Amino acid sequence: MRRYVILAPGQFADNAKTAHGVIAYSTDETVAVIDPAFTGKTVREVVPYLDSSAPIVASLSDALRYEPTSLLIGTAPQGGKLPPEWRVEILLAIGSGLEIVSGLHDMLADDPEFAGAARRHNVAIWDVRKPPKVPLFSGAAYDVKAAVLLAVGNDCAVGKMTVMLELARAARDAGARAEFVPTGQTGIMIAGWGIAVDRVISDFATGAGEQLVLEAARRNPQYILVEGQGAINHPAYAPVTLALLYGCAPDGLLLVADVKRTHIETYGTPILSYSDLIAAHENLCATVKPAPVVGIALNTHGLDASQAAEEIARAFAETSLPADDVVRNGPGGLWKTVAPMLIKRYPLSAKVVA
Amino acid sequence: MRRYVILAPGQFADNAKTAHGVIAYSTDETVAVIDPAFTGKTVREVVPYLDSSAPIVASLSDALRYEPTSLLIGTAPQGGKLPPEWRVEILLAIGSGLEIVSGLHDMLADDPEFAGAARRHNVAIWDVRKPPKVPLFSGAAYDVKAAVLLAVGNDCAVGKMTVMLELARAARDAGARAEFVPTGQTGIMIAGWGIAVDRVISDFATGAGEQLVLEAARRNPQYILVEGQGAINHPAYAPVTLALLYGCAPDGLLLVADVKRTHIETYGTPILSYSDLIAAHENLCATVKPAPVVGIALNTHGLDASQAAEEIARAFAETSLPADDVVRNGPGGLWKTVAPMLIKRYPLSAKVVA
Repeated sequence: MRRYVILAPGQFADNAKTAHGVIAYSTDETVAVIDPAFTGKTVREVVPYLDSSAPIVASLSDALRYEPTSLLIGTAPQGGKLPPEWRVEILLAIGSGLEIVSGLHDMLADDPEFAGAARRHNVAIWDVRKPPKVPLFSGAAYDVKAAVLLAVGNDCAVGKMTVMLELARAARDAGARAEFVPTGQTGIMIAGWGIAVDRVISDFATGAGEQLVLEAARRNPQYILVEGQGAINHPAYAPVTLALLYGCAPDGLLLVADVKRTHIETYGTPILSYSDLIAAHENLCATVKPAPVVGIALNTHGLDASQAAEEIARAFAETSLPADDVVRNGPGGLWKTVAPMLIKRYPLSAKVVA
Repeated sequence: MRRYVILAPGQFADNAKTAHGVIAYSTDETVAVIDPAFTGKTVREVVPYLDSSAPIVASLSDALRYEPTSLLIGTAPQGGKLPPEWRVEILLAIGSGLEIVSGLHDMLADDPEFAGAARRHNVAIWDVRKPPKVPLFSGAAYDVKAAVLLAVGNDCAVGKMTVMLELARAARDAGARAEFVPTGQTGIMIAGWGIAVDRVISDFATGAGEQLVLEAARRNPQYILVEGQGAINHPAYAPVTLALLYGCAPDGLLLVADVKRTHIETYGTPILSYSDLIAAHENLCATVKPAPVVGIALNTHGLDASQAAEEIARAFAETSLPADDVVRNGPGGLWKTVAPMLIKRYPLSAKVVA
């Protein structure tokens, strides 16, 4: 079991998706957060929906009294670069014998200064985004016995991972065997395994999705719930979305939508309507292995209860699909309506590889 | 300007697509080919459609009298591995001061023996598949003044590169400034620049497409003709197809279809009809930056003249789009009908990056 100190200076409140995900869902404990902007407060005081009284401190040296085992880089900046001013804190952590856990594109273990320090102090650097060598997509995922549900979104960072973690919990609460499949750095930190598909060489990205489903299938689940990535109309990340859409060979799709988004994050591309999103994904799947959208998980964070209820009602009215906010209302209701729709589906041709 | 000797022992006649592509389309000269099976013959005598009288010789030492500057690995063997018996010829070439040009998956510059020899003899090793570091997609491609035409296909290996090279030639013959953009290894060898997008990390694949278009735009063309990759319903390579579809910000698409394909190569996935292919690509583009399919280039290789004419007529009847086989009939006719349809189009929102 790790005891994390999370590095997120100046970013913990609004720009630390990784930190929030790990605090909310990891079975590892977060013992402190480094963000000088909130020194003296607790996690819960800064991010009310996180049920944690871990202290926020100004620096690594202040965090050491909480006896962390590991320093976790708590943000995932665009492009995955390490802010240069964080180097000194990371070196101090290595010098203090802490394991380093990072989801950045920059591989910290390949940085000569970090690697040298880690060797001298005998600490590990876990670059969770570093992909393993994976084979090309083979079609083996078509033979998986479990029903595969894949989250697709109206944008990136809308809550796909959270929704799938919640639904996996609801499935288990309902007595089913369900496996959550992490496809990005935060999910990997939480589940302790997975592949950051966005870091895989393009030719092998569908193969990575397939390997993840095969790995989950080895645990003999009834349901495999795959965290999605990006969005199908995301100007930068759509190829990763498509890699999972084909590579995971899903039997059903769950649409995860932040109701407040109007444009793709950091791009000007308009968010698609529910019906356009459903058509875009179903039409692509129809060319390889058909998979319907079976439900809609809405992210209504920031709305009041009646506004949220209105958004949920609107999604249902527009699509005739079960819709809910699983964070606000719990995942049990949506899971109960969605699970019976997850029937095993088959690719267009039984002959997979000639 | 390079003067190539091409290494293809035992393979030049039937198994050297890379060599054939470079001889047919590169502006660099091929001065000799190494293949002991055809010593004493010319290129044209072994591969009649290649208009070259370059001699075929038995070994590198025999090739040196033709004063090559560079040794090009002329095949892409299964698995991309270097046949071990070729090592000695490559080392001899390095020892003779020749640049090494390779499209293998094995990076020759990472081979300690080749790297050491290259250092000692001060020669360069160009691994054309090795991708450069590219930034994330930024939207800068939306501001390119030239009209961008992207090839999309009904499968991989159907002739997208050849078609775009032929159309670029037709455009120049018609007095227009046109730039061919290579996105794969053979195209890179032919044009002397480019990025093998299939080797780029998934998150950066659209960025790679954008950088290619920006690089072409610096040469101030009227038209940018981008070699496509894969197919939109290819179970393994579709993410690369989508990366170019969004990353190159095309103003028009050219559908390249091998009329004989019934299933995606090595997979059982059925080939889509022309109208399904057009809808799939146009619907995706419509979510980011609209781009219509403006024409169809058919690969009718192996059919007789009347069968080919029938296929061309059928494509036109089904789609009402200009259709032709530019290898069989020359590229001038298709270019003349397609060029006026290449009008500049704009992304859905002018605000590209917030």
